[in-house]
Amino acid sequence: MSLHASLRFLTKYKVLICNVRYASQAMPQLSSEKYNVKRKDFAKVQNSDVNHFKSLLSEDRVLTEDGDVLPFNIDWIKNCRGQSKVVLKPKSTAEISAVLKYCNDRKLAVCPQGGNTGLVGGSVPVFDEVVINLMLMNKIINLDCISGSLVCEAGCILETLENHVKEHGLIMPLDLGSKGSCHIGGNVSTNAGGQRLVKYGNLHGSVLGLEAVKANGIIVDCLKTLKKDNTGYHLKHLFIGSEGTLGVVTKVAIHCPVLPKAINVAYFGVNTFDEVLQVFKRAKSSLGEIVSAFEMMDNYSIKTVIKNMNLTNPLPDYPFYVLLETHGSDIEHDTEKLTRFLSKEIDEGQVLNGIIASETAKIQAIWNLRENIPAAGLRDAGYLFTSDISLPAANYYQIVPMLRERLSSKVKSVYGFGHLGDGNIHINVALSEFNEEMLSLIENIMYEEVAKLNGSISAEHGVGFYKPKYIHYSQDDSALQVMRELKQLMDPNGILNPYKVLPETKN
Amino acid sequence: MSLHASLRFLTKYKVLICNVRYASQAMPQLSSEKYNVKRKDFAKVQNSDVNHFKSLLSEDRVLTEDGDVLPFNIDWIKNCRGQSKVVLKPKSTAEISAVLKYCNDRKLAVCPQGGNTGLVGGSVPVFDEVVINLMLMNKIINLDCISGSLVCEAGCILETLENHVKEHGLIMPLDLGSKGSCHIGGNVSTNAGGQRLVKYGNLHGSVLGLEAVKANGIIVDCLKTLKKDNTGYHLKHLFIGSEGTLGVVTKVAIHCPVLPKAINVAYFGVNTFDEVLQVFKRAKSSLGEIVSAFEMMDNYSIKTVIKNMNLTNPLPDYPFYVLLETHGSDIEHDTEKLTRFLSKEIDEGQVLNGIIASETAKIQAIWNLRENIPAAGLRDAGYLFTSDISLPAANYYQIVPMLRERLSSKVKSVYGFGHLGDGNIHINVALSEFNEEMLSLIENIMYEEVAKLNGSISAEHGVGFYKPKYIHYSQDDSALQVMRELKQLMDPNGILNPYKVLPETKN
Repeated sequence: MSLHASLRFLTKYKVLICNVRYASQAMPQLSSEKYNVKRKDFAKVQNSDVNHFKSLLSEDRVLTEDGDVLPFNIDWIKNCRGQSKVVLKPKSTAEISAVLKYCNDRKLAVCPQGGNTGLVGGSVPVFDEVVINLMLMNKIINLDCISGSLVCEAGCILETLENHVKEHGLIMPLDLGSKGSCHIGGNVSTNAGGQRLVKYGNLHGSVLGLEAVKANGIIVDCLKTLKKDNTGYHLKHLFIGSEGTLGVVTKVAIHCPVLPKAINVAYFGVNTFDEVLQVFKRAKSSLGEIVSAFEMMDNYSIKTVIKNMNLTNPLPDYPFYVLLETHGSDIEHDTEKLTRFLSKEIDEGQVLNGIIASETAKIQAIWNLRENIPAAGLRDAGYLFTSDISLPAANYYQIVPMLRERLSSKVKSVYGFGHLGDGNIHINVALSEFNEEMLSLIENIMYEEVAKLNGSISAEHGVGFYKPKYIHYSQDDSALQVMRELKQLMDPNGILNPYKVLPETKN
Repeated sequence: MSLHASLRFLTKYKVLICNVRYASQAMPQLSSEKYNVKRKDFAKVQNSDVNHFKSLLSEDRVLTEDGDVLPFNIDWIKNCRGQSKVVLKPKSTAEISAVLKYCNDRKLAVCPQGGNTGLVGGSVPVFDEVVINLMLMNKIINLDCISGSLVCEAGCILETLENHVKEHGLIMPLDLGSKGSCHIGGNVSTNAGGQRLVKYGNLHGSVLGLEAVKANGIIVDCLKTLKKDNTGYHLKHLFIGSEGTLGVVTKVAIHCPVLPKAINVAYFGVNTFDEVLQVFKRAKSSLGEIVSAFEMMDNYSIKTVIKNMNLTNPLPDYPFYVLLETHGSDIEHDTEKLTRFLSKEIDEGQVLNGIIASETAKIQAIWNLRENIPAAGLRDAGYLFTSDISLPAANYYQIVPMLRERLSSKVKSVYGFGHLGDGNIHINVALSEFNEEMLSLIENIMYEEVAKLNGSISAEHGVGFYKPKYIHYSQDDSALQVMRELKQLMDPNGILNPYKVLPETKN
């Protein structure tokens, strides 16, 4: 699930969570007006620019009709709307290089765009930035079935890659709810996480190499497929997670682990959060090499999903629930390990009761409980505030009771669930209706607490357009200063994805 | 094993591989003379500077006596000798910050130093750089036993950390031959690999956060312990693998996996290298989650070790040998998986014959065969050239027969062994005696081939002082240009570890 973040906006517009990328009934307000943003001093696109773009690409890959351009101006959750007049669909790195060189010389701002599934408004323009959409850069270049290295263009859809590598007994190292439309280049640019990071690690570990184009059009070639390469600075990491503001990722080499032959899911109840932590610790010790997800849901999360989504809870009412998934190579061994672990936990009283599923349908039924919490939350609340934060394990859940106490009768409910294995919790606050003041109160209380606990105000979704003003809660001045210097170095005219990631300096 | 790289130097000086850090019988020539390097235009340390350092630290932590300073001028393999006149032993980040600010203002060059176990001459001065040794910054700050995050100062010795986390059921994610003296800060600064990278991943994946001091003394705080944090640019990666040329790493937060309860080793013979690759692929599929090392040794490697190290080969004479290690949570399961896998491979004729060991002594006896190859190579040759390169899996071994053909009767032997699981191969070329011309011929043939195959001329040891002139074989101009710009940004006076990593520009 990577939909949960900003689903609060969905309630507001009463849009169903579905695959419709743009629905006319949900025309969002212009981002610049809604968020009161001032246009920076970039040049404006002229007819001569459009003609030049047509000469660089081809006529049919330069969109300028309002109706054609509109979907590229609106983000997936239909909260942001930019005002771009032109969308480019390059087919090669050379074309992107030529476009960027031209835009940089002309001081035209650009918005690099992948599958446009981001949840923080980072993938759509704010004003009239030139959209560079990578959907036509979708070639799979090579798959080395022995080492597991996949090389492809940045516009490849994650699910397409998943299907391709699956035929060769491999999986992609990340799995996202948006995999049917998100691009691997966007995943890399946002350092996308997902729920199996606990087993397969993050993209800084699994991206082997990449190719990117700098703001000035220069192509930086770091497209190695090696697991070990200590020759100079490790440049690829500049582009992983910088959300298209330091360069446009055009090709990716990524390590694909082996497809698991055995998948199991355990679902069980626990009495206190402290006991959930202890169970997690013992699970790592007893079956660490096969744990692929360790998800925690509090009582209210499960109650909400049961009540609103026509689902059944196979367990009685417990304070906390855990979904533990395993990926391994031997179903008998994995089932035996998991059964032994769960029985022991139950016998010793740390786990109240639990079930294990090995069949696909049963596994999915359990995952449904977890994955439907965001949607259930929307149905349950007049307005739902949801967050994507990271915290150290010991402090993982403490914001929930703190918020309950601080907000008390002002809100309907506060509940938490998420990827405990990665320290990533989603906290939902249900209100009876939208209330700007209350929203601001919740955000300030929550982010102040996150800062105090050395957590992150964006675990996996990035900063994008929404969170630059909050970034100081997670990054101190020393780090922000280096970030600004890097931006100045890589993109001195600031044309790449402006109004995103870094906050404006005050002077 | 991380000693293998430059053991050729050891032969020259007939020094035993042991823990002696400095032996007077092996006083190396000055690096500046040996490699004909010109001193850059830095200021020279004056008495007033020394007095200022004493005021910033304390008198006893500023070494200036020749005898005291000498060990810090000579690298572990006794090939390099610098001419530093002063060694500083700071106890805190604040002290390092004050020292660097002063040196930067004064344009005094510095050489940050950890355990001084590097193999490419990166950790000792070349001229009179001020040595900043981090040995007194050795505090373990925190260990979160649930998430596995360890926070410590950069001067902690890897083995000390290993012992500490072991008491809590955890292991360090890297294991090196030099762990008894190398510092975690040095490991991070060189992006150290090791032989279990195939299971535990690289440091870009496992370092959670760090604190570093820039050349101008500014402390950059990225010391988070979170697995997921997407708030702005991921700065820590600037300091991982940049060998102290972009900043001095002062604190590290790192993820420690769970200590394996079960360790097994299989050792088997294979007929062709292509079959070794196929066996590797099937091993990942059948027991992927527990494979912690997959080491390949050719026939000559094993012959050399048997002949020179008084060891016995438990298997007959085969063209290739593999050492496959597993780390898991259940000895019965792991042994069953491994036995089943090996039996099937033998039955189907891909593996010629093999053995499995589960007892510590037997496991070590097998590892001895692999780990003693470098030392055996030294005994076997008048002069031994050894390399640390990475190649794509399919091309992993092809340099060995190519070198044999190209060098033919000019050398005694060419053989290869290494971490096939990571694409990291060590190629030994045995000569009857040292020959500068032959050395240059071997390097050029090898690195040209590595470049052609998109490999790396330094898989895990780094660039340091030895390899800047070869870096173009692995990094193209576009990447080198960005590296130079980063260096200029982070260290405009170039005071941090000069003469290392990046080649001098020609103009």
